[in-house]
Amino acid sequence: MKTLFRNATIIPMRHEAGEADVFRGSVGVVGNLIALVATSEEEVQAFCASHPNCRIIDCTGKVLMPGLINTHCHAAMTLQRSYADDIALMEWLNDYIWPFEAKQSADDIALGMTLGVVEMLLGGVTSFVDMYFHESRCVEVVERLGIRALLGCSYFDHSLEVAKADALAACERAAGCDRIRIALAPHAPYTVSREVLLASKHFAEEHHLPMMIHLSETKAELEQVAAQYGMRPVALLEELGLLNDRLIAAHCVWLNEEERATLREHGVIVSHNAQSNMKIASGAAPIAEMLAEGLCVTLATDGPCSNNDLDLWEEMRSAAFLQKLSHENPLVLPAREVLRMATANGARAMGFAEGELGVVQQGAVADLIVVDLNKPHLQPIHDVVSNLVYCGKASDVEWVMVDGRMVVEERRIPGLDLAALYREVGEAANRIKKQVAER
Amino acid sequence: MKTLFRNATIIPMRHEAGEADVFRGSVGVVGNLIALVATSEEEVQAFCASHPNCRIIDCTGKVLMPGLINTHCHAAMTLQRSYADDIALMEWLNDYIWPFEAKQSADDIALGMTLGVVEMLLGGVTSFVDMYFHESRCVEVVERLGIRALLGCSYFDHSLEVAKADALAACERAAGCDRIRIALAPHAPYTVSREVLLASKHFAEEHHLPMMIHLSETKAELEQVAAQYGMRPVALLEELGLLNDRLIAAHCVWLNEEERATLREHGVIVSHNAQSNMKIASGAAPIAEMLAEGLCVTLATDGPCSNNDLDLWEEMRSAAFLQKLSHENPLVLPAREVLRMATANGARAMGFAEGELGVVQQGAVADLIVVDLNKPHLQPIHDVVSNLVYCGKASDVEWVMVDGRMVVEERRIPGLDLAALYREVGEAANRIKKQVAER
Repeated sequence: MKTLFRNATIIPMRHEAGEADVFRGSVGVVGNLIALVATSEEEVQAFCASHPNCRIIDCTGKVLMPGLINTHCHAAMTLQRSYADDIALMEWLNDYIWPFEAKQSADDIALGMTLGVVEMLLGGVTSFVDMYFHESRCVEVVERLGIRALLGCSYFDHSLEVAKADALAACERAAGCDRIRIALAPHAPYTVSREVLLASKHFAEEHHLPMMIHLSETKAELEQVAAQYGMRPVALLEELGLLNDRLIAAHCVWLNEEERATLREHGVIVSHNAQSNMKIASGAAPIAEMLAEGLCVTLATDGPCSNNDLDLWEEMRSAAFLQKLSHENPLVLPAREVLRMATANGARAMGFAEGELGVVQQGAVADLIVVDLNKPHLQPIHDVVSNLVYCGKASDVEWVMVDGRMVVEERRIPGLDLAALYREVGEAANRIKKQVAER
Repeated sequence: MKTLFRNATIIPMRHEAGEADVFRGSVGVVGNLIALVATSEEEVQAFCASHPNCRIIDCTGKVLMPGLINTHCHAAMTLQRSYADDIALMEWLNDYIWPFEAKQSADDIALGMTLGVVEMLLGGVTSFVDMYFHESRCVEVVERLGIRALLGCSYFDHSLEVAKADALAACERAAGCDRIRIALAPHAPYTVSREVLLASKHFAEEHHLPMMIHLSETKAELEQVAAQYGMRPVALLEELGLLNDRLIAAHCVWLNEEERATLREHGVIVSHNAQSNMKIASGAAPIAEMLAEGLCVTLATDGPCSNNDLDLWEEMRSAAFLQKLSHENPLVLPAREVLRMATANGARAMGFAEGELGVVQQGAVADLIVVDLNKPHLQPIHDVVSNLVYCGKASDVEWVMVDGRMVVEERRIPGLDLAALYREVGEAANRIKKQVAER
């Protein structure tokens, strides 16, 4: 597999001081790696000469940039998209979400995951971190559709054993696929007991699995954990030894300065979910502070029940807007910083070192997207990064490459029958909804 | 012109108690009016028999709904889109926006307006309220592209006379076109003096022009008006007699309960700009309170310098999310209410009585859009209104009809050369930017 993206506006997302943050050039991919980042015609000709059969994608008037990385979602919950909106939390969970989930089979979850992955790929998401049930059943979906994933086997207090089995099965099924990694995903400090969290840690260490958890999402969580343990959620996780640089902490809305310092010291990766935090009214996370203090903050959509889509373009915009508002300062979280959260920072959540993923540079893994600038909302181009972050849409994404393989071509996933997928999804959603109503 | 939208999922946005808020049916348009809203095949057959040459649009798997109404923008500022982001306000205005505007010709503004209208039409906006300079030059743009507009001739303290001349010229040029109305648009209570505001009122009354103004947008405005007049902006406008049901007040972020009651008593139409208020860090307007108190609240994008697009789908979502967050309550501003703001309520801002525009009902003006539900982010369909408000995108809009005329067909504006438009816009933007840099 050899590809040349020719004559693109490149947004490399590299950290090097003094390097132009946008430039015109061409990018060559050999195997799953970026082999060439060229600004001269000579380099391009040399690449073509040594790779005579490479596929050439003309990127004139288009942006080539790292694919977006969604570091926290429950992709299979597409089946419950808009199932129960604008309803109070406990009614929502008790009468809708939990009964729906109780009726879902592993096949239903794989189907929901398929729809979620399709939505993400078409919107330029090349990597995602998932947190749900039956992840072992979803390995095949991820493998087939060609996206990169960290699949977190999730559980509540009573279901660690189920999750362990799921994780081991998932590891086995994903063994042949470099794009898939498996994680352990205890739901939250207020839904998983101290003992089970400790057992989780031991299991994760034993099997070298990274972990993820919902952390300090709502004020109610702080109160519940305080009532149970007499401490705050971050302190609890620190005491249990769960904080490390292989932990993704989702939400982190209610963190004080001391807690942020704790997370930074342990290298915990923060996943910010701006739209979910707004829609569920959880609060505005102190993202600008975290970035200034040197935490690794990434970006995520959360599940389609609380967003209701898997669109990281909207998430970039909302994250920037929300920080500016909550800090009463329009300078906070500028476009470039939020784009970094959605790309280079996100790569860290996927378990990659700096420069390995989420950047356009020689030697990095080729997870790349081509965005068409020939759209009314992306013209004129005073500042292409501002245009993308403040105006870009999922529908502007034209080509998507993951691990060197083209998975979206001119806005389509080759070989995928979308109409059949929508039909199947609709039938499954209606069947489950009916079963819930008949309880 | 006769059109039949056949077999659609119809969202009528009518107020009648007990009426289904979504139903399957067909809609017939004759001239510029909705002549038929049918749920039975017999009615459809009868319509086809009496209008044998009507154009039939198959809407299976698609939504037919009122076009979106953008009640506050500066559409020509597309030329300055992303020109100067993430910069402090006074530097932004002094070094970028105002020098740029000083170099713009009327032709430049018409070009920027063209791009803005194209963006809005393709995104399902059928009506917009504009507030800018050289509106008389833009009449032709609106007339040609087929959108509906209320064009507000704007001015600061020193430029009322220019705006008056612009308004009279605009009225004359728009005389033959029912879709265009002209308004007077003093910039804000802190930039236009008491005397000029009073003179504005008299001119507007004399010429039967509605008015629009930025009102209580920032805390700084409150302070400035207090320093100048010893009162708050709403009190100032009330004292001057500017408050009435032909005034659109944009932003209204900083209104107390008494001021909201004042606006309601006078029937003032409020234009909410959620994304702009976030990006510029103006604050979270008390929209839920206003709606509960019976004010007419509409929805808007503001200009492409402070948003940075003209996308009312994002605005619906952001408005809902922001209210939920600022009220710490996920039940606030549900999907149906925000959709009403963007349609039926918006019609009031355009000068239409209830039921005349912004609804799908017999006798209403035919400003309609068809939205394709066959998108991964809009499946499955548990609740089509939730799906549209929380997941719908400008790019999902397939057909757009304004005043009975189809202006967007399968996502394209017939006869428009987009590539040439982008080229022209880019050249103008670069020329002006260069002139600013050379000052």
